[in-house]
Amino acid sequence: MSYCEKSYPTEPTAPTVTTTQIPGPASTKAIENLGKVFDARPCYFVADYEKSIGNYIVDLDGNTFLDLYAQIASIALGYNNPDLIKAAKSPEMIRALVERPAIGNFPGKDLEGILKQLLKFAPKGQDHIWSGLSGADANELAFKAAFMYYRSKQRGYNTEFSTQENESVMDNVSPGSPSLAVLSFKKAFHGRLFASGSVTCSKPIHKLDFPSFHWPHAEYPYYQYPLDKHTAENKKEDDRCLQIVEKLITSWEVPVAALIIEPVQSEGGDNHASAYFLQKLREITLKHNVVYIIDEVQTGVGATGKFWCHEYANITPPPDLVTFSKKFQSAGYWFHDPQFIPNKAYRQFNTWCGDPARMIIAGAIGQEIVDNKLVDQVQRVGKYLIDELAKVSEKYPQYLQRLRGKGTFIAWDLPTGEQRDLFLKKLKLNGCNVGGCSDKSVRLRPTLTFEEKHVDIFIAAVNKTLKDF
Amino acid sequence: MSYCEKSYPTEPTAPTVTTTQIPGPASTKAIENLGKVFDARPCYFVADYEKSIGNYIVDLDGNTFLDLYAQIASIALGYNNPDLIKAAKSPEMIRALVERPAIGNFPGKDLEGILKQLLKFAPKGQDHIWSGLSGADANELAFKAAFMYYRSKQRGYNTEFSTQENESVMDNVSPGSPSLAVLSFKKAFHGRLFASGSVTCSKPIHKLDFPSFHWPHAEYPYYQYPLDKHTAENKKEDDRCLQIVEKLITSWEVPVAALIIEPVQSEGGDNHASAYFLQKLREITLKHNVVYIIDEVQTGVGATGKFWCHEYANITPPPDLVTFSKKFQSAGYWFHDPQFIPNKAYRQFNTWCGDPARMIIAGAIGQEIVDNKLVDQVQRVGKYLIDELAKVSEKYPQYLQRLRGKGTFIAWDLPTGEQRDLFLKKLKLNGCNVGGCSDKSVRLRPTLTFEEKHVDIFIAAVNKTLKDF
Repeated sequence: MSYCEKSYPTEPTAPTVTTTQIPGPASTKAIENLGKVFDARPCYFVADYEKSIGNYIVDLDGNTFLDLYAQIASIALGYNNPDLIKAAKSPEMIRALVERPAIGNFPGKDLEGILKQLLKFAPKGQDHIWSGLSGADANELAFKAAFMYYRSKQRGYNTEFSTQENESVMDNVSPGSPSLAVLSFKKAFHGRLFASGSVTCSKPIHKLDFPSFHWPHAEYPYYQYPLDKHTAENKKEDDRCLQIVEKLITSWEVPVAALIIEPVQSEGGDNHASAYFLQKLREITLKHNVVYIIDEVQTGVGATGKFWCHEYANITPPPDLVTFSKKFQSAGYWFHDPQFIPNKAYRQFNTWCGDPARMIIAGAIGQEIVDNKLVDQVQRVGKYLIDELAKVSEKYPQYLQRLRGKGTFIAWDLPTGEQRDLFLKKLKLNGCNVGGCSDKSVRLRPTLTFEEKHVDIFIAAVNKTLKDF
Repeated sequence: MSYCEKSYPTEPTAPTVTTTQIPGPASTKAIENLGKVFDARPCYFVADYEKSIGNYIVDLDGNTFLDLYAQIASIALGYNNPDLIKAAKSPEMIRALVERPAIGNFPGKDLEGILKQLLKFAPKGQDHIWSGLSGADANELAFKAAFMYYRSKQRGYNTEFSTQENESVMDNVSPGSPSLAVLSFKKAFHGRLFASGSVTCSKPIHKLDFPSFHWPHAEYPYYQYPLDKHTAENKKEDDRCLQIVEKLITSWEVPVAALIIEPVQSEGGDNHASAYFLQKLREITLKHNVVYIIDEVQTGVGATGKFWCHEYANITPPPDLVTFSKKFQSAGYWFHDPQFIPNKAYRQFNTWCGDPARMIIAGAIGQEIVDNKLVDQVQRVGKYLIDELAKVSEKYPQYLQRLRGKGTFIAWDLPTGEQRDLFLKKLKLNGCNVGGCSDKSVRLRPTLTFEEKHVDIFIAAVNKTLKDF
């Protein structure tokens, strides 16, 4: 019995779309009403989560879509998962919701168990966790850890702050508030607050009008596909980008304290970094005392066919900090060097320090993935999916360019952004909810419970869409 | 029947402390274990939230404290509130936990109702909301709204971005990423991320080693108490600080786009701003086209005797943005001018745009406060509490200096930080959990369900503590 047969016995056998437009009339009216109290302009449709099940999302018009977007890559197990419902109804959850604790000062007796449950799913080489609330929050908390670590290496971990540091920091000037940078990559997406916004660089609309830190953006390798037919060019591309990274680190106007990278740039167009590239970054960061941060916010939690995508690269020694959010429903960073715990209490601190309610859900998601070997399933289904897409690509090479992916974390390009948008729109009318990324890419982000039967439905919808395209 | 009699029939009639130290042996062991997976250095004790009830928090040693700290001022209604438990068990909540939606793209049918429920509790003059995840997040989202608004006033709300803006922003430079500042106040606390950290200025430990924006800090008025005996000096102090504000706005190295202020600086020492001061800031910000942001993260949701503390000042026209978090368990900002909704979709956007699970709790908290007239109760109990404290102050003037407060949001100073810390330690052993703020202040932050009977217990504990002090 497959996972979906077991967990979603009432999952539909096929999508049904009965309206001629998406959003349909009921969604359109609901969006209009919602627009009076909320910025509803980006809404695709209004969902009925009561009726959504497994890999299918239902809208207010009763349209039932096979969901390969999954709340912007944030649903690991599908809708109305019985094990998550159980976790949501647990006494531990009720307490976490009603007695939201300031876990730094007054942790509850449940906290140790909640954290230990999460630590079972740490990336290879990591054995500590610090919790936050969102991907942007996780990355900024990681930056704080990185800056403290970087300065503690200069100052000495146990050295007291100087009077000058204690005074100058209150005026937001050096040395207490040092001029240091985080290096990221062009097309990167790491969140939309001010420090995370400064390392984000995928689209102007995310950043316009906000002051930012003047931090450098290196170039992320852009490969030719299929990879096995372009080994030499892609290696050359890696080396070109590595040179840029090292040059920026050694020549930027302020010292570079940390480097942050997505193993696959997601919002930026599903650009993959090779194992070679990610390993070389480890060598460069060690050489120049730069903290190495891997952002697994979108790539983490199984969809790439590894629990954590950077495990494909077997980075040695492991990266210093690994951030997570989205499909874990919670957020935070992993680390292994205990000196990433600052020398004094209250330096990495805030009122809530994360949300135990969301951590409980994360623990239940991780357990379900492991117990049901869903990462293995993603590898198997992903292989089937990309092979089937390769067949479609042979028929319609112009509409499936640069087909690429790991697990079910797959993307391809259309010739233009207009065509991509039209393709996604028609695909919705053919029953599949899919998202785009960057200018002209299609990104698939199904849940980990996506099975071969769903692949067949999706491929049929793609073929149908392209037939009259 | 009082609120506590109705909602907490099993609430203890008095605290009990059976250990000779806090944390006691069971808590100490639990903290040690927790310390292996978490930064447990700031833990006061490990709580048993199953046994905690109403205004009493129970620790692992069975000590039962009257809680006047309430998770760093974050519990509105007390522990194990039956109405919140009901909300936590609702089908709507289960959906919000299990189907965490990307509410910007795929809002659920519940969202409109959830937001409308929150809007019932908007501050006077505000009728829109944008949701976030924490106080720091709320403030940074408000800064984004403020910067977009500020630039849209210069550019024209519907004017397209220039090519130069679209290009320069990708390099984190002007004009796409403009050099603009947010003005805050010395001793302010607005959060601990990078932009919120740049306006925070209460203690070096919050900020050391982090790069920051070079933004200005004005002076916050420091009053003589009791207020009615120092009208002239305090007015002079207001005017002195207002002059500094205006001078910084007109002379800072980059334009000041926004001003953020707490109506009572909490972390910074329970410094209150007068209605006159807050109103004059409205005039100055209007005169210089500066967005006026009130941070109600700690002061909001009733504890000051108004639902929103700045309503005491009757600021006219109302402030542009009001941020909230803590006792609402959710976070975000209120506004009224529709031009604070950016001209294009996806400018104020992120994957989750808040957490419906936490918004449901906020809605239930607000409803419970209104239905039970708990803000009126806070006024009544607060008056009784401060009058009783004034009597203690007459007996021990050296240990209750500058007694001040609104509602039950009350503070006083001890002569030194060491004495304050010792006082709080002994007070815990006498059954009351109370926090400090700034260098030498005691801050009371009981829930809104604190009643006269709790005041009597607390005053007895203070007297007992000071008797042998």
